[in-house]
Amino acid sequence: MGKKLTKITSSKPIIGITMGDPAGIGPEVVVKAVTDKKVKQICLPLVFGSYQVISSAAGKFLKRSNVKKIIYVEDTKTSKTGNWRLETGNCINVLDCSHFDHTKVKMGEITKLSGRMAADSVFCATQFALSDQIDAVVTAPLSKNGLHLAGYDFPGHTELLAYLTAARNYAMMFVSVQSPPSTVDRRPSTEKYKVVLVTTHLPLSEVARTLSKNKILEKLSLTQGALQKYFGVKKPQIGVCALNPHCGEEGLFGTEEKKFIIPAIRSAQQSGIQAKGPFSADTIFSPRISQDFDCILAMYHDQGLIPLKMRGLGEAVNVTLGLPIIRTSPDFGTALNIAGKGTADPKGMINAILLAVRMTKKIKTQGN
Amino acid sequence: MGKKLTKITSSKPIIGITMGDPAGIGPEVVVKAVTDKKVKQICLPLVFGSYQVISSAAGKFLKRSNVKKIIYVEDTKTSKTGNWRLETGNCINVLDCSHFDHTKVKMGEITKLSGRMAADSVFCATQFALSDQIDAVVTAPLSKNGLHLAGYDFPGHTELLAYLTAARNYAMMFVSVQSPPSTVDRRPSTEKYKVVLVTTHLPLSEVARTLSKNKILEKLSLTQGALQKYFGVKKPQIGVCALNPHCGEEGLFGTEEKKFIIPAIRSAQQSGIQAKGPFSADTIFSPRISQDFDCILAMYHDQGLIPLKMRGLGEAVNVTLGLPIIRTSPDFGTALNIAGKGTADPKGMINAILLAVRMTKKIKTQGN
Repeated sequence: MGKKLTKITSSKPIIGITMGDPAGIGPEVVVKAVTDKKVKQICLPLVFGSYQVISSAAGKFLKRSNVKKIIYVEDTKTSKTGNWRLETGNCINVLDCSHFDHTKVKMGEITKLSGRMAADSVFCATQFALSDQIDAVVTAPLSKNGLHLAGYDFPGHTELLAYLTAARNYAMMFVSVQSPPSTVDRRPSTEKYKVVLVTTHLPLSEVARTLSKNKILEKLSLTQGALQKYFGVKKPQIGVCALNPHCGEEGLFGTEEKKFIIPAIRSAQQSGIQAKGPFSADTIFSPRISQDFDCILAMYHDQGLIPLKMRGLGEAVNVTLGLPIIRTSPDFGTALNIAGKGTADPKGMINAILLAVRMTKKIKTQGN
Repeated sequence: MGKKLTKITSSKPIIGITMGDPAGIGPEVVVKAVTDKKVKQICLPLVFGSYQVISSAAGKFLKRSNVKKIIYVEDTKTSKTGNWRLETGNCINVLDCSHFDHTKVKMGEITKLSGRMAADSVFCATQFALSDQIDAVVTAPLSKNGLHLAGYDFPGHTELLAYLTAARNYAMMFVSVQSPPSTVDRRPSTEKYKVVLVTTHLPLSEVARTLSKNKILEKLSLTQGALQKYFGVKKPQIGVCALNPHCGEEGLFGTEEKKFIIPAIRSAQQSGIQAKGPFSADTIFSPRISQDFDCILAMYHDQGLIPLKMRGLGEAVNVTLGLPIIRTSPDFGTALNIAGKGTADPKGMINAILLAVRMTKKIKTQGN
């Protein structure tokens, strides 16, 4: 217990994984994902959450498993061989950071308790990432309502993480990931398609009045930076959506294009960002047009998420841009209707972990 | 000139086709589409517009053609054989209904003149459909701005047609059409996927305040009726989109679901309409969920059109529900940037004509 918090050096990145809301499918997809062959091959997953919850999920959803309680990250290394435990067998390392009574959590029912446990995991993983003990954070789904009941008034993970890391300019990016068809296939997953949102979790009625030239410009700048830093795109091409149908049809169906979007694109271009648009949202996402861009900037949640999720649920990974840490997550929610049933598909969680690993490696090779 | 306006009986439906705005790609796609082999096989197309404009387009964009000026629909029948002229050769019949000087129209430039010529074609075709001289109207793209310059303040074709036919309850439906891969392939096109919009050409900022329970209910009723009447679906299953991200997340991201959408779905169910939802818009369009429905009701333009156009531009056909006539159109606009260049693809126009023919046949077999 008196060990120093020293950074473990390893060729494999250490990926912190939060358990999500214990009333949802989070713990199930986490135990399935961290024992996935591909995941274990390329990283060292460390689960943040309740040891009891993860042990129980592993017992219920895995054929065999070995869940270890970890206090310091260094403990994940066995003293004898210097190897990481997770490299062998179905061992799951859990950094036990939520000590509420897990037996009071009811599957499928979001409560103050389940919300608190979910929040604990995020708090702890974020601190470990900020202090450089882990390389990235991948979050399992939590409920905004659970956060709210637990007293944390954030619309979601993204805003909570921005608060915890003191990030003022941040954005949600979604990356559509194409996995090889079988788990035996050793080829890496590829990123097909990226979307960044200007506004996120808002009623649709508030979207237009929340837009501004500066906000759009800020997201364009974040997008360019992220594409260069994490995805190795030297001169990113960014396509920008209109807000209104038919690009506002010369002002007949809305003026935000003229007032905010076009001026923001011009300013961005002047500062060296390759932004183009605005394009009608119902044409830019057609493959013929979207293939010209490394990323598309959407003005609101569903505008960006409808096309992305059409390419396959669970294949999109959420990446938070603008944080001092790497953070990804799957695109699904707590799925209360199937919580505890063992039918949850870990594919999205696996994709989120694999993408976090690729991002980690990209910045390491750049010497950042 | 003294002939009676008698209804021509023929096994093939007579499809009226407006030429669209002459400054755009309308006339080009019209002459290409009406001389298409499949189109000629199953219907008798009659173009409504300027004889001069269509003659000029035919000369420019077709290898050979024979454009005939028609005054009465009956004139499309040759006196000697009783056959329709269009059944042989590349003959294009034009009901000449716009007599402005076409030489003053500049390709790619929407003006008061081009808007007037586009509107004339719509007025005339609609009257012929109302008086039962033609079986359906298929409209080529016009510019809302052109209509506006010409003094007709309608946001688009749909509203103009509703006005001309005194329809008070109407809706835009989009049908995604899958054509056989080659024109030699004789298999019919199939309809993959249908969307109806609750609100249409509005600034996004006005969508939320324009919704109401009654409006949603009205569109559900129109949708059910159309699916039964024109598409032969006996018990249509209709999926309903939420307005806000994550279905409003229990009211955290908007209340329109609770206030309007859920009550409308309940009322619809009570009156025997198989409506389900609301579903988050970013999940309902994924193939796994959308396949359960014959049609999806979207709350606003881009919500319905983004997923539809992702399946391929030019493959979606716009159908106006609630009119006393059958009306379809392709999903593209005037495409001013390529107007006059000969590169416009008539596929969407052909799909719109073929769908109008299928709808015509469906109501004829039902004896309506």
